[in-house]
Amino acid sequence: MQILESALYAEDLEAARNFYEGILGLQEITYDASRHLFLRLETSVLLLFRASKTVVPDADVPPHGTVGHGHLAFSATPTELDDWKKRLKDARVPVISEIEWPNGARSIYFNDPAGNVLEFATRNLWFRT
Amino acid sequence: MQILESALYAEDLEAARNFYEGILGLQEITYDASRHLFLRLETSVLLLFRASKTVVPDADVPPHGTVGHGHLAFSATPTELDDWKKRLKDARVPVISEIEWPNGARSIYFNDPAGNVLEFATRNLWFRT
Repeated sequence: MQILESALYAEDLEAARNFYEGILGLQEITYDASRHLFLRLETSVLLLFRASKTVVPDADVPPHGTVGHGHLAFSATPTELDDWKKRLKDARVPVISEIEWPNGARSIYFNDPAGNVLEFATRNLWFRT
Repeated sequence: MQILESALYAEDLEAARNFYEGILGLQEITYDASRHLFLRLETSVLLLFRASKTVVPDADVPPHGTVGHGHLAFSATPTELDDWKKRLKDARVPVISEIEWPNGARSIYFNDPAGNVLEFATRNLWFRT
């Protein structure tokens, strides 16, 4: 089984757009400043919603939405992770934590503009290959 | 870029465990009833956290956590989607909505025990292949 859609919530979608597309380089699928920003990754999509709009029923889509700071990790090779550290620094996005896990995997953490906790992690955190 | 970790929040992790493993058939990586349930999918992991435990700093992991109902979609072939409809019905998990999208893709929606809005969607909702 595979995950096709992951969701995070952000009220300021313009800020989210600048961040996810401008800094992380994700590809936009759809942008509706009043409700959502949909982004394409390699094998799945990342959906950013304004929870204030999605907690109410909308056609046949059941209400959903959270407040607080969600979490999502992107996979990176060790080299890519180092590149991202530099790229985030250049974009003045603070790396708020860096972890080397007991199995040798590495993670760096940073926030999106809405305060969601994002991570780049080497794939061996969870998978052998 | 690929998503390595998607996260949802659930305070009752035993209920989550019964649901995600017992009904959806996901494979457990780690279970700590007081804090988290980590589940393995094909190319990524799904992390269920008790937000009441993760909104406070925990070693080097930055605080995160949400209240409300998050969203996640699993991919399914059309045949698998029909199988899931039956399997959810047998497990007395109501399908709360069913959508046929303009491009022919199909989705079914249901809730996990914490009220998160889950979906099975055919891959052509977002990808051509």
